[in-house]
Amino acid sequence: MDNHALSDAERAAVYKCIETRRDVRGEFLPDAIPDEALAKVLHAAHRAPSVGFSQPWNFIVVKSPLVKERVYQGFREASAEAAERFAPERSELYRSLKLEGIREAPIGVCITCDRSRGGPVVLGRTHQPDMDLYSAVCAVQNFWLAARAEGLGVGWMSIIDPRRLREILGIPGEIVPIAYLCVGYVSSFHQTPELEQRGWCKREALKSLVSVDGWGNGVDDELLRRL
Amino acid sequence: MDNHALSDAERAAVYKCIETRRDVRGEFLPDAIPDEALAKVLHAAHRAPSVGFSQPWNFIVVKSPLVKERVYQGFREASAEAAERFAPERSELYRSLKLEGIREAPIGVCITCDRSRGGPVVLGRTHQPDMDLYSAVCAVQNFWLAARAEGLGVGWMSIIDPRRLREILGIPGEIVPIAYLCVGYVSSFHQTPELEQRGWCKREALKSLVSVDGWGNGVDDELLRRL
Repeated sequence: MDNHALSDAERAAVYKCIETRRDVRGEFLPDAIPDEALAKVLHAAHRAPSVGFSQPWNFIVVKSPLVKERVYQGFREASAEAAERFAPERSELYRSLKLEGIREAPIGVCITCDRSRGGPVVLGRTHQPDMDLYSAVCAVQNFWLAARAEGLGVGWMSIIDPRRLREILGIPGEIVPIAYLCVGYVSSFHQTPELEQRGWCKREALKSLVSVDGWGNGVDDELLRRL
Repeated sequence: MDNHALSDAERAAVYKCIETRRDVRGEFLPDAIPDEALAKVLHAAHRAPSVGFSQPWNFIVVKSPLVKERVYQGFREASAEAAERFAPERSELYRSLKLEGIREAPIGVCITCDRSRGGPVVLGRTHQPDMDLYSAVCAVQNFWLAARAEGLGVGWMSIIDPRRLREILGIPGEIVPIAYLCVGYVSSFHQTPELEQRGWCKREALKSLVSVDGWGNGVDDELLRRL
């Protein structure tokens, strides 16, 4: 039954990669990323699943300090607006958090989605038109895991007006910026998510998130014990 | 510089998992999935990144043949509509493809996104409100890779009206169904994507998808050679 499974050691490696992946903001080192490592991670992203094999992604590697500075200014403005939207004590905690490593990370990588790729009718998008966006997100997650394997930290920086990001990177109209990732070697990976450590929110119990055969239906005891 | 990287063997395992992951439609075996394996894969999904650590996902495990049959009927209707939208020769090819394994796969797993989770203001969603949907997609990709490691095939079945899926699974209004996954052990994994094998579309060259510091800017020769 398990003849197509990876070996025990290989499985352990995959789970280790998944378990130890973190959103990195504060631990970036200035060390350059070798082209070989960057190419491997981009290759992994390009091996993501895509709706109708449309591969709607592009990758903009940001190396220029000037471009990074403009992205950082976009973050600053958005984050100041965001801080105003939280209740006072949350707002104070929000302002104390390190939320990005745009300038410290040696590179940024913007992953985009070309909504016109694959032509006017894409297999699998006919009834769920956002499947192309979701494909690009799968590429983000593959990138993130491959980066973790290489010892590279990744931070998904979403606190910016997407129109601003589009303008800074010259992204044309039919292309949607999905993720701006800060990427670099790190002094350390946190053992648990920082937002959990800082008391921003708690890890949900997996067993509270699983149901069987319909929303909210209970799970049998055997499975429940293992969740 | 690589002191936080996984070992060579571990990295190879992660890349093997990413490279050999397939969208499975036609190779499902009826063998039951042990609760232990299912729990491990769900656990991996729950370790996905999420915006503001909001963990917006839920997992509906579909075991009932009756529920699967209803999902299959939803697919049948949507797919018949979809076939009409392709040009004649594409339509013929479309109709000849095996596009789902809903009834053959021993289980289905619907991964959803609760758009209200984390309250009215979520860190990182203030300027990109769809970040919660993207988080749920990251959970899909973690699920898919962990499943591959366990020797389980996964097929993302997106050819169904989401309202129909919502109705079949009793999914409440504020919850968005993101993915319906067919999951099971397989007779084999295809070496390359089926849609490539069947001539539906080709793998894009990675080097055509990468630019530096802005959309469409050329990549230096050193990196280009490795892409």
